[in-house]
Amino acid sequence: MPPVRNELSCLFCKIAKNEERAQVVFEDKKTISFLDTRPISKGHTLVVPKCHYRNLLELPQSEVTALFSAVRKVASKVKVGLNSDGLNIGLNEGAAAGQIIFHLHVHIIPRNFGDDVRFGNRLQLSDQEFSQF
Amino acid sequence: MPPVRNELSCLFCKIAKNEERAQVVFEDKKTISFLDTRPISKGHTLVVPKCHYRNLLELPQSEVTALFSAVRKVASKVKVGLNSDGLNIGLNEGAAAGQIIFHLHVHIIPRNFGDDVRFGNRLQLSDQEFSQF
Repeated sequence: MPPVRNELSCLFCKIAKNEERAQVVFEDKKTISFLDTRPISKGHTLVVPKCHYRNLLELPQSEVTALFSAVRKVASKVKVGLNSDGLNIGLNEGAAAGQIIFHLHVHIIPRNFGDDVRFGNRLQLSDQEFSQF
Repeated sequence: MPPVRNELSCLFCKIAKNEERAQVVFEDKKTISFLDTRPISKGHTLVVPKCHYRNLLELPQSEVTALFSAVRKVASKVKVGLNSDGLNIGLNEGAAAGQIIFHLHVHIIPRNFGDDVRFGNRLQLSDQEFSQF
């Protein structure tokens, strides 16, 4: 185990420590997965290491298995749970690539044929719609 | 080691077996990485397991570490080698998500501030431009 790293001001560190609320869909020792509050499509989920690493290049080799095993597992849960036709799975490394929160996170975005998803567009959902995912 | 799986008609299986040419940037026992011939940005690289799995959900848990360790390593090589400001790293799971070749592959897409990259657009490069990556 690496030393526990976290940043006091980081939203995802707060979620990992249960200091900030999130709609958690999966959690294990090293990762936590929750719904994106500004989803690109319904069910858009983030998979996050509990320790604070800014991006994939900062993630130690020893942590790769835990993170991407969780990604694989959560991807399956999202796809089966929503009966979606497909998924986009990805991460943005750096502000030039669209990274906004500088705590490594992998997006899992459900896709369906003809859904017209655009990556720049975020859905505005009511609390009720959000909780129905 | 899982049994060697490959599909006779699969382009990426052919590249993995050195039966089809590609501009290879990294190779290890279980993975091969090469430039995308229809890049979204210069240096757009694909990381591919040598065995034929259609997508991430079909990838056995035992193969997760090898694939994503290679992704992490190649991402670093691409970013440092091209001195890019950032990277988009991702995979499309299923035709509804934009998957075209049904052999699992992870895209590594170099990004720079103000580059105006659009995910639907593929660059048309001359052979010379392509080989200069």
